[in-house]
Amino acid sequence: MTSVANALEQHRAAHLEELKELLRIPSISSLSEHTQDVRRCAEWLAAALERAGLEHVRVLPTEGHPVVYADWLHAGGERPTVLIYGHYDVQPVDPLELWHSPPFEPEVRDGRLYARGAVDDKGQLFVHIKAVEALLRETRSLPVNVRFLVEGEEEVGSAHLEDFIERNRDLLAADVAVISDTSLFAPDVPSITYGLRGLVYLQVDVRGPSSDLHSGSYGGSVANPAEALARIIAGLKDERGRVTVPGFYDRVRDLEEHEREQWRSLPFDEAAYTRELGVEELYGEEGYSTLERLWARPTLEVNGIWGGFIGEGSKTVLPAEAHAKISSRLVPNQDPDEIARLLAEHIERTAPRGVRVEVRRMHGGRPAVVPPDHPAMEAASRAVERGFGKSPVLIREGGSIPVVASFEVLLGAPTLLVGFGLPEGNAHAPNEWLLLDHFYAGIRTSVALLEELGRVELVTAGAGPKG
Amino acid sequence: MTSVANALEQHRAAHLEELKELLRIPSISSLSEHTQDVRRCAEWLAAALERAGLEHVRVLPTEGHPVVYADWLHAGGERPTVLIYGHYDVQPVDPLELWHSPPFEPEVRDGRLYARGAVDDKGQLFVHIKAVEALLRETRSLPVNVRFLVEGEEEVGSAHLEDFIERNRDLLAADVAVISDTSLFAPDVPSITYGLRGLVYLQVDVRGPSSDLHSGSYGGSVANPAEALARIIAGLKDERGRVTVPGFYDRVRDLEEHEREQWRSLPFDEAAYTRELGVEELYGEEGYSTLERLWARPTLEVNGIWGGFIGEGSKTVLPAEAHAKISSRLVPNQDPDEIARLLAEHIERTAPRGVRVEVRRMHGGRPAVVPPDHPAMEAASRAVERGFGKSPVLIREGGSIPVVASFEVLLGAPTLLVGFGLPEGNAHAPNEWLLLDHFYAGIRTSVALLEELGRVELVTAGAGPKG
Repeated sequence: MTSVANALEQHRAAHLEELKELLRIPSISSLSEHTQDVRRCAEWLAAALERAGLEHVRVLPTEGHPVVYADWLHAGGERPTVLIYGHYDVQPVDPLELWHSPPFEPEVRDGRLYARGAVDDKGQLFVHIKAVEALLRETRSLPVNVRFLVEGEEEVGSAHLEDFIERNRDLLAADVAVISDTSLFAPDVPSITYGLRGLVYLQVDVRGPSSDLHSGSYGGSVANPAEALARIIAGLKDERGRVTVPGFYDRVRDLEEHEREQWRSLPFDEAAYTRELGVEELYGEEGYSTLERLWARPTLEVNGIWGGFIGEGSKTVLPAEAHAKISSRLVPNQDPDEIARLLAEHIERTAPRGVRVEVRRMHGGRPAVVPPDHPAMEAASRAVERGFGKSPVLIREGGSIPVVASFEVLLGAPTLLVGFGLPEGNAHAPNEWLLLDHFYAGIRTSVALLEELGRVELVTAGAGPKG
Repeated sequence: MTSVANALEQHRAAHLEELKELLRIPSISSLSEHTQDVRRCAEWLAAALERAGLEHVRVLPTEGHPVVYADWLHAGGERPTVLIYGHYDVQPVDPLELWHSPPFEPEVRDGRLYARGAVDDKGQLFVHIKAVEALLRETRSLPVNVRFLVEGEEEVGSAHLEDFIERNRDLLAADVAVISDTSLFAPDVPSITYGLRGLVYLQVDVRGPSSDLHSGSYGGSVANPAEALARIIAGLKDERGRVTVPGFYDRVRDLEEHEREQWRSLPFDEAAYTRELGVEELYGEEGYSTLERLWARPTLEVNGIWGGFIGEGSKTVLPAEAHAKISSRLVPNQDPDEIARLLAEHIERTAPRGVRVEVRRMHGGRPAVVPPDHPAMEAASRAVERGFGKSPVLIREGGSIPVVASFEVLLGAPTLLVGFGLPEGNAHAPNEWLLLDHFYAGIRTSVALLEELGRVELVTAGAGPKG
């Protein structure tokens, strides 16, 4: 056993106590009455990073909650720079009465640490702080240059983060980013997430008469915007769930056979998934398994629709307007700008007569995939194997983590998504928990990851230490 | 000049002052802070009916605002009984700042009487009270038996009226009903409305997963209820606006050639109508003119639609459910029950996979048409000609007046819709007005109508005086 591993073993209890202290701070970013708690949490973290031996520790203001930064840039030679991202803000806790122990009084039961933020993301972020601390204390050095970027607005959409990264490219320059804010695929199935879907989010506004009309006095003589909108939406896909917008699939990269194979071997229980969602049957694009539909195929979903009278009872209006929020999840190599344009053009081209249709782009993000044979990905696989004693599966995620695209675009750095949560860990729900075994395996994995990354050559668009 | 006509001429100023008094009472039925005003208005009306010489004047309670009843049943012989319906409640007045004079301080400008309720419906109701009064004072008699039924909940959906009629069939027994709550087709075009469309109002509920899902993590694997709903709605009509539900048109009675001809001769300005609605073009069923689409063809309209995230900005949910309010305007001889069943069956039969669809019936009403050669209709035509000095056009109305169906079904009485408003009279809007000339012509028409109805034989399912 190395001295670092030894130190980690000896400090298990202390690490847990320290994490509990962090979890006691109710840093709910969405509630203004917790603004001071969010601030306090940033300062607590800054102190923890300082204690860990990091340098240039700063609590940096944004237009919203502050960002915490720290670094250690003395690895020397050609050693890569690793940017560790996490967030210290948490979700609200309501409904409070469903919690078995208070959300901000961390409690261990059955090997699980229960608290708001235990897994999302304080517990997973803390893993890396403790790994760096152990390495610095035991070896007086780190195998790579390290920067920490910890934000306080992830749970409210990271509104100011991209701007922050753009204004601080030099400070954040890195060869690879590491995020621990995801889950193992299943218990005892350590996982690395190597792909995320991108996003295009649109609002479609359909307008007809200048005000709501009486559906008796006017109905039949003028186009109905809600009906036109329904027709537009129905025209975006065929009955088998395939998007009918010309060009939509043109750049979609086919799955590699080895990916399909690996995913087929994952312990995915379709019946349990169906039950969990509360549906009678699953539904999606023909010719693909559920995981393939979720991870490797683009979607087009209505996120919201409204128009006319939506209260109790009945009101006989012919609505003046109707609206829908529509989004596409994108996969490599789809381009958000191109897809937004294709969708908007198709909608405008096929708009029913008698109404005016406007398509507005809300936001978007690129899909991201780190090839499994990327040297950083191989290093991460070895690290997870060392931390968990079992080699990881490579999975993707259907959602988007916008900061990953920002790192790619603004810093030129690919992101390793190495998560220590579990799908059933109640992130965003009452009784959030982190398995203690995963907390400790996480710290071991982080130490191993920094060591493994110190041994590979990373040739990226990112720069070495400048900050 | 008869003594009645003479009396009407002499009392013009007094009639106007009395109507102003009625209009000063802010009897807004939808606002609970006006409950006492509504009550006061009912009592004011009862006193006015009493003064007019009517008998059995009563303010009768309902579960909501009271009904005012009065009658005079001494016509004798085979003279018919005429039920005069009106409502004494009014719409709210906001936005108040758009009124040029206060809504409850009646003011005459340019020959128009401005006030909330001037045309809808206090002014039009008052016409009949003054007509009966003049006849009773000058002739000590009426040419027909008369009952007044004046409700205080028309502007809030007449929730308790049908029940009231059903419980008071004997009290309300009549051979023909008269309602003045409509408009002339255009200025200087006196009109009788002889047809109304019926109504079927449904709510469609589409349900998918048991809660809103993250559209990234789950999108593509499960049916989207908002999308399914859009598909259902799009499937109800073809692109030319024709309803595709089997059987929907089976009982639709074709227009008579004389109706088409009469309507073609009406001064209907399609360009002005288009401008008024604020649309670029009109849109409706092929092969029919706008008036035919509005008056003689059934419709199917989405009145409201909602589901998922409908706030500002973007939220990536896959909604658990989506809903629509859908209604059909019906024409003779469509049956609301049958159409409701056909729609529900079609929607359930064509429901997309992966969602659960429920169709709930909210309410409905039969279409109504009084044949132009009905003796009461002929009497009404002569009366309008006497009142306005010009024979009326016979028009229909696209909306529904549910009480007309109640009179038909519960009392067996057809309804004469003889209106004195104008389409531009701002009913339900700021600066509501009634042309003073129409007020006086209305009183003359009402006198003539009672006289003309006294001369015809009405064989209906309704009974003579019993109350």
